[in-house]
Amino acid sequence: MKSGRDNKRINVVANILEANDRVAMENRRLLEKSHTRVIDIIGSPGAGKTRLLEATLPALAGKMRVGVIAADIETTLDAERIAVLDVPVVQTTTGAFGGACHLDASAVRQALEQLDPSEFDLIFIENVGNLVCPAEFDIGQTARVVVLSVAEGEDKPLKYPLAFRTADLVVISKTDLVPHLEFDMAALRDNLERIKPEWIELSARSGDGMPSWIEWVGRTARRAIC
Amino acid sequence: MKSGRDNKRINVVANILEANDRVAMENRRLLEKSHTRVIDIIGSPGAGKTRLLEATLPALAGKMRVGVIAADIETTLDAERIAVLDVPVVQTTTGAFGGACHLDASAVRQALEQLDPSEFDLIFIENVGNLVCPAEFDIGQTARVVVLSVAEGEDKPLKYPLAFRTADLVVISKTDLVPHLEFDMAALRDNLERIKPEWIELSARSGDGMPSWIEWVGRTARRAIC
Repeated sequence: MKSGRDNKRINVVANILEANDRVAMENRRLLEKSHTRVIDIIGSPGAGKTRLLEATLPALAGKMRVGVIAADIETTLDAERIAVLDVPVVQTTTGAFGGACHLDASAVRQALEQLDPSEFDLIFIENVGNLVCPAEFDIGQTARVVVLSVAEGEDKPLKYPLAFRTADLVVISKTDLVPHLEFDMAALRDNLERIKPEWIELSARSGDGMPSWIEWVGRTARRAIC
Repeated sequence: MKSGRDNKRINVVANILEANDRVAMENRRLLEKSHTRVIDIIGSPGAGKTRLLEATLPALAGKMRVGVIAADIETTLDAERIAVLDVPVVQTTTGAFGGACHLDASAVRQALEQLDPSEFDLIFIENVGNLVCPAEFDIGQTARVVVLSVAEGEDKPLKYPLAFRTADLVVISKTDLVPHLEFDMAALRDNLERIKPEWIELSARSGDGMPSWIEWVGRTARRAIC
């Protein structure tokens, strides 16, 4: 049963998403011109997105030209953590746009005016910490990665299906914590298999699983853009 | 600098929030009639909201009449965990409303049609796992609690200020994990003090800090509704 109010809301959402998709296509054309690949990293607050980048960027140094767009509602804390690694980074704060809970294609377009794509082979976008809304917005990425920390629990792929269904890769992070949690890794694997994305289990802290992730990033950075 | 498009978007958002506030006031009047208090629990996916309820509900048994509204995008997993404790529970899934990233006042109104407030002294609402959007929506609650797990990191109150600024209480959860994390509790306390909410540190697993939380819940359940 849908009321008139629900229908109106759904129309407004559809219009916003349609306008976003047009800008995302423009971003994609801009990135194609310079053969720049973009990996959009989404996940809950504290899933370990910045920590993953901190462990990834040194491994890519000298192999490709990498830049980062870090998004948060407020603060430049993430950009500061990336900048010390000598990687070009632009911080986008959505606080200026009413504290938006995701990046949309226009926000990425503005960031790309500051981080010239022609200077990079690969740009990581660290999205706003949120397992729901960022999954709804195409921003012109080559691939999307969802990071889920083992501390979040094994039921999350079932509860937040859109993020997992639309991701090119799932990264299960913080695996070093498993011995200290009431956590059922076999159940998580079962839940992921029901949704069927590709996934990698890793700990940025211990280094376990990092080679598979670095290999996936390298493959994505070389992927043909069609 | 705001484009015409941004202004339009902000107007749409303002209209949605205004309509929501009207329904929230209606919810509040309905709850006042039966002297029912409502505690809205928000937090990231995996912050430990359901686990906190599992540890709380047995402690309240026989002291007050308690019901639960559990919200998720999909699945009834949380409601199943609550139901085994013999507590009346209604599961709301927002998947039917385009996978909404929060509960709004209308969704709560619908849930209150199934969980008659006159039968309860206290209703807990476990909101959709999201540290951003639920903070923007008044749903008619008596008090709002934000749950932040130590696994999420000490910088979250700065990055997601609205949730912390508008909360009546912050619960820092999973403190039993601190020895296994690169986590700075002193920095988290500093960050909380800058935003100045009341907070409780606890572990639902070890029981540490639970008495302070149960005391706070009892006080809220007796709070005069004005």
